[in-house]
Amino acid sequence: MKRRDLIKGAGAGLLAAGTGIAAPAIAKGVKQWRMQMTWRANSPLLATGPQLVADYINKASNGRLELKLYAAGDLVSPFQVLDAVADGTLHMGHGYPAYWAGKLAAVQFFAPIPFGFTSQEQNAWFHYGGGQELADEVYGELGVKFLPSGNTSVQAAGWYNKELNSIESFKGLKIRSGGLGAKVLTEIGGVPVQMPLGEVPQGLQSGAIDGADFVGPFNDMAFGLHKVAKHYYWPGWMEPSAVLDCFINKEAWDSLDKDLQEIVKGANAMANQMVLSEFVTKNAQAVKIMKEEHKVDFRLLDPATLGHLGRVSQSVIDDVGQTDDLTRKVYASYRKFIDTVQPYSELSEMAFMNARAQLKS
Amino acid sequence: MKRRDLIKGAGAGLLAAGTGIAAPAIAKGVKQWRMQMTWRANSPLLATGPQLVADYINKASNGRLELKLYAAGDLVSPFQVLDAVADGTLHMGHGYPAYWAGKLAAVQFFAPIPFGFTSQEQNAWFHYGGGQELADEVYGELGVKFLPSGNTSVQAAGWYNKELNSIESFKGLKIRSGGLGAKVLTEIGGVPVQMPLGEVPQGLQSGAIDGADFVGPFNDMAFGLHKVAKHYYWPGWMEPSAVLDCFINKEAWDSLDKDLQEIVKGANAMANQMVLSEFVTKNAQAVKIMKEEHKVDFRLLDPATLGHLGRVSQSVIDDVGQTDDLTRKVYASYRKFIDTVQPYSELSEMAFMNARAQLKS
Repeated sequence: MKRRDLIKGAGAGLLAAGTGIAAPAIAKGVKQWRMQMTWRANSPLLATGPQLVADYINKASNGRLELKLYAAGDLVSPFQVLDAVADGTLHMGHGYPAYWAGKLAAVQFFAPIPFGFTSQEQNAWFHYGGGQELADEVYGELGVKFLPSGNTSVQAAGWYNKELNSIESFKGLKIRSGGLGAKVLTEIGGVPVQMPLGEVPQGLQSGAIDGADFVGPFNDMAFGLHKVAKHYYWPGWMEPSAVLDCFINKEAWDSLDKDLQEIVKGANAMANQMVLSEFVTKNAQAVKIMKEEHKVDFRLLDPATLGHLGRVSQSVIDDVGQTDDLTRKVYASYRKFIDTVQPYSELSEMAFMNARAQLKS
Repeated sequence: MKRRDLIKGAGAGLLAAGTGIAAPAIAKGVKQWRMQMTWRANSPLLATGPQLVADYINKASNGRLELKLYAAGDLVSPFQVLDAVADGTLHMGHGYPAYWAGKLAAVQFFAPIPFGFTSQEQNAWFHYGGGQELADEVYGELGVKFLPSGNTSVQAAGWYNKELNSIESFKGLKIRSGGLGAKVLTEIGGVPVQMPLGEVPQGLQSGAIDGADFVGPFNDMAFGLHKVAKHYYWPGWMEPSAVLDCFINKEAWDSLDKDLQEIVKGANAMANQMVLSEFVTKNAQAVKIMKEEHKVDFRLLDPATLGHLGRVSQSVIDDVGQTDDLTRKVYASYRKFIDTVQPYSELSEMAFMNARAQLKS
């Protein structure tokens, strides 16, 4: 109660004063910055990145850059976070590119791409394939600097109460989903439904929806989806990589001392890999528990269905990739990179994992 | 010439003075540290990590921690780097865990493990599976603090002049290799040969060796291995993940201010992912060039051969894992983690990559 009032007060003050990004310095050379995440406080796995970024910056800058972390709704509503960073109400935000895709079409290619990059490939694109520069250009149009700051790893194809035995099975199903994956579902006759995470368990139980793309094993189990849906389908063709984004008011970023810029970069480099590691670890533990204790029915979509989904996905992203000049530029870079990296991933990661998997049988 | 003399002079001075880790401060509060890598200056991909660590620390600390980077042989020979860090001749080193496996058996489980972790899984183990704490315990026995600082991704199975059509094909072949992979090759009748990287092209050409485990497509092509060997076999069952290590004199680490410790951690978090990204990107480009321009004969080992190699690998690492108490402890942690993470990787990364791969056919 006390904390909420305090923050509310601070938020109201901020917004009323309209002071923009210039925070009052409490000691010589000290900057005080506000970062809000789109997630609730202590949201499992998703809040890890922003918390880590804040902790790292506070420690590594030795208090020269004081970053105060706010949770969803503390100062602005979750979907207002990017605008609030752009206009200087906040200095930094932490969220998910798909949330901003409605603002600018090109953002869709930083959100999960059906049958697209794995997280390792997407990181390579960011670091050595021009992805970081393109993200800065695209997010720059929205008034912010972009940094990759976490990844969920490959998500699930979703929870369903009916069996998915062919592409026909999707016809008429109401499926909680979003982004490019929802566009593909529409093409094959599914009915994408937008629904906040918290309403999904009830939605599946009541039959308001027939299926749901959620997050991944750990979060899905925490929300009790295994109790309200019969089958857990894999792999997550819609979201093979889902980067979380950290974005910084451009003016605030440009005015930051070079050493503090490095510290902000280091914080996000750390978050980018720690968050992925936490998702991998806790998802793996959750899969084990769901199999052994809850006897969850894990299913793999069959090759013919996946093949059909893949061809439709390709066609959908080819179309979306032509939306406007900026999107065309990002899509061309994505296309060139994946065409080069995928054969290598198949020779290395994929061939190795297949060889290792056959040992058990 | 000039530079070499300068560094030689500095090194001689250091060693003669035997000053240990206390460097003379040139300005109040400034620490001057020496880091040597095991690689030659500008060694492609391998020198990226140490250079990035040095640059990041120099920039982010705003000169409070001045890190000077030396290359192989500048102050000590490559294989002396860890000892030189432990005794304070150097403050930091950058290399490859396999180089230190002869010092302490447990180090072998931080080096590549045949049929073991992928890089994503190994990172998860370091960050959320107790791997970092165990590495600190093991490297602590050698007098240093450990940080993961890069990864080669899955390596190749190697270059061969004869076809490998069954497990029998390995019998009697002299194969440049090392670490646990060499132990497996011995078990199946191969003859592991230790040979510096630079001698491998000539060794393959003259027939002194019949095959070679080298690094990966980019480095292998740079050394011209495609000109002296007929077949390029995949996947790298011997080295599915190869972390590069950064190690710091324990006393120097413990005496570092907390904010500088964070900066050193951030530098290595950045190197850990940037180096992996560079390997993935440049290996992918090299595979494309080797296929299209050099018509290199890429081969996949057949499932029966891989199955046999996998079973022998399992038996070899089970044995090695019992060497002593510390090794048993590390091996038990590795075993527990991979048994949990592998089924998740198969459901997510592997199933996704297989689905994506079939789209081309």
